[in-house]
Amino acid sequence: MDTITLAHGSGGRLSRELIEEIIYPIFNNNNGHELYDSALLPLKKSTIAMTTDSFVISPIFFPGGNIGKLAACGTINDLAAAGAIPKYMSVGLIIEEGFLIKDLQEILISLYETAVEADVYVVTGDTKIVERGSADRIYINTSGIGIVPEGASVSPKNINVDDLVIVNGTIGDHGMAILSCREGLSFGVNLKSDCTPLNGLVKELLDVGGISCMRDPTRGGLASILLELAHQSGTKMEICEKAIPLHPSVRAGCDMLGLDPLYLANEGKLAIIANPSKKEEIMRVLQSHPLGKNAQVIGRVASRDLKGTVLLETDLGVKRPLMLLEGEDLPRIC
Amino acid sequence: MDTITLAHGSGGRLSRELIEEIIYPIFNNNNGHELYDSALLPLKKSTIAMTTDSFVISPIFFPGGNIGKLAACGTINDLAAAGAIPKYMSVGLIIEEGFLIKDLQEILISLYETAVEADVYVVTGDTKIVERGSADRIYINTSGIGIVPEGASVSPKNINVDDLVIVNGTIGDHGMAILSCREGLSFGVNLKSDCTPLNGLVKELLDVGGISCMRDPTRGGLASILLELAHQSGTKMEICEKAIPLHPSVRAGCDMLGLDPLYLANEGKLAIIANPSKKEEIMRVLQSHPLGKNAQVIGRVASRDLKGTVLLETDLGVKRPLMLLEGEDLPRIC
Repeated sequence: MDTITLAHGSGGRLSRELIEEIIYPIFNNNNGHELYDSALLPLKKSTIAMTTDSFVISPIFFPGGNIGKLAACGTINDLAAAGAIPKYMSVGLIIEEGFLIKDLQEILISLYETAVEADVYVVTGDTKIVERGSADRIYINTSGIGIVPEGASVSPKNINVDDLVIVNGTIGDHGMAILSCREGLSFGVNLKSDCTPLNGLVKELLDVGGISCMRDPTRGGLASILLELAHQSGTKMEICEKAIPLHPSVRAGCDMLGLDPLYLANEGKLAIIANPSKKEEIMRVLQSHPLGKNAQVIGRVASRDLKGTVLLETDLGVKRPLMLLEGEDLPRIC
Repeated sequence: MDTITLAHGSGGRLSRELIEEIIYPIFNNNNGHELYDSALLPLKKSTIAMTTDSFVISPIFFPGGNIGKLAACGTINDLAAAGAIPKYMSVGLIIEEGFLIKDLQEILISLYETAVEADVYVVTGDTKIVERGSADRIYINTSGIGIVPEGASVSPKNINVDDLVIVNGTIGDHGMAILSCREGLSFGVNLKSDCTPLNGLVKELLDVGGISCMRDPTRGGLASILLELAHQSGTKMEICEKAIPLHPSVRAGCDMLGLDPLYLANEGKLAIIANPSKKEEIMRVLQSHPLGKNAQVIGRVASRDLKGTVLLETDLGVKRPLMLLEGEDLPRIC
C-alpha cells in the first residue's frame, strides 16, 4: 500500500485497512479514547468551546512544519485564544487519489504529536478520497472542543479604552516562510513557520488575569485581526510600527517584495488586549516563556470614537489607518 | 458578487463581505448563538458526543437534496445513531474559485434548514477558497456535538445473540439516485435520495428501550455497516434477502447495472440491533413514523461463532457470507 486509490474511500476492505493499518496506529496511544464515528466525551464543566478550520496550505511540507502540524495548531490556538482549555479534536481528511501513504503517515504523525504536546486527544475522524485533479494532494479539517473554566471571559466585549495591545513575538514568520518556500527565495533561508500550539502560554496568561481578549492572527495577519477586534469592540486602536517585532528575514522579504508584514499570516502568535494595570505581570510571564520571549507592547485602545479603526503610527511619525485586505496576495497560506 | 474569487479567502475585505453578507444572514436566526471562530456552548449534561464528516459528493445538486442538506444530515445522523441528542454543528467550506455565489447560498440555506428541522444550531464555521482545478466546486465538512442522556448506552458492546436486525425502510435509495442522476439513467425517474435527519425517529426508539446499537449505513451500504457491527461485537449475523425492503427503481437499477443494493449508500436509514423482547413496540414506533413506515426485521444476531461474519440467506435459500467491498464502485457518493 504505497499510494491512495479511490477504493480507499469506498467504505469497503481498503477503507478499513487504510483506517486500521495506517491511520489508527498513529492515534493509538490515545489515552484510552476509542475512535468511533461519534466520540463520547465526558466533561466536568458546563460550558465548552467549539471551533472548526479547514487547511488547504500549499506546499504541504514547509520549513517549521507541515499541513498536519498546522491543522492541529490552528484549532488548538483558536480554542486557546477564546479562553478555553483545548481537549478534543476531530480530523477530516480529503485526499487526492495517488497521494503517497508515507506522506499521509508523516502528516498524521505530526498532527498527533502536536495534539499530544498540547494535551489534546483526537477522538474521531473521517476520510474521503477524490479523483486525481479534484483536490491538490490533501486537505485537512480539524474541529476542536475545549472547556471554558468557570468565570473565564475573554471576548471583544471586554475590550476597554486604555487597554494595551501586545504581541508575543515576531510577526509574519509563517506567511513569509511559506512564500519563500513556494517561490524558492533565498532571504527565507533562516526563516521557519512559527506554527506551534499556544495553549500552554495562554493558560499562564489567564492565570495572571487582566486579559480582555485574545486572537491568533492567522490568515490576513495582525492588521486583519486588530481591525476585526476594533470592529467587534466598537473601539479605535493605535499601533506603533516601531514597536512591532520583526524577524530580519521577514523585514528583508517584505522590503524586496513590497509586502506589509502586518498582513502576513502567523500560526504561533497572539494579539493580546490587556488591562494596563497588569502590564508588568503579563510581560514578565510572556518574556519568561519560550513562545513569548520577543513579546512587545505595540499599541493601545485609544477611544470609542472612529469605531473599527486601527491607526498605525509609522516610523516617520505619521498616523495612517490600516485597511482591510482588498485582494488575495497569498492564497492557500493555511 | 456573483462568483467566488481567491480574494474571498484572503481574510480581508472580501472575506468579511462573503461571511457577513452571504453566509451569516443564512444562519441569522440562530437562537441567539453568535458565530465566533470558537463557539462557547453551555451544556447541562456531562457526556457529549462528537463526530466529523467531509462531504465531496458529485453532483452537488441531486434529486432529494444537495451537498448542504447532505452535510447536515450526515453529521446529525451519526450523532443520533450513537444515542446522542444532536445540538451543535460546525461548517467548514472548501470552495473552488469561480463557484457561483447563488449556488453557495442555496446549499447553505438547505444546510441551515435541515439543521433547524433537527433542532441543531450551527455555531461556528470556516471558509477556504482554492484556485480553479484544486477542488471540484465545493466540499463541506460538518462536525457535530450531541448530548448523551444519562444512562443511555448504544454500542456494539451491547449486541447480544438473538438480537434482531431491523432497517427503517428501503435501502440503497441515495446511492442509486446519485448514480442515475450522474449517468442520466431513466430507471431513476421516480427515485430520490433518502437524505433526511433521523434524530426525531431515534429519540422515539430510545424512549421505547431495548436498542442495543444503531448505525446509519451510508458509504459502503448496509452490508458494510453490518460487517462492521459483527466485527466490533464479535458476533455472526444472519440476514434474509427477501425481507430487505427495496424501492422498485433501486431493484431495477441494480438488475440493469449488476449492482448489489446492500452496498449502495443511504442517507436516511438506520440499521437497528434490538432486543427481541421489544420487537412489537419498536416496530409500532417505526411503522407509525413517516421515516419508518417501510421498516422491516431483516435478520438476527445468530451466534458468537464465526465472529465478524454476516450471512445472507438468498431468495433461493442459500446462505452466503457478505464480503467487504474490494474496490470503489461509486466514488464521491457522499
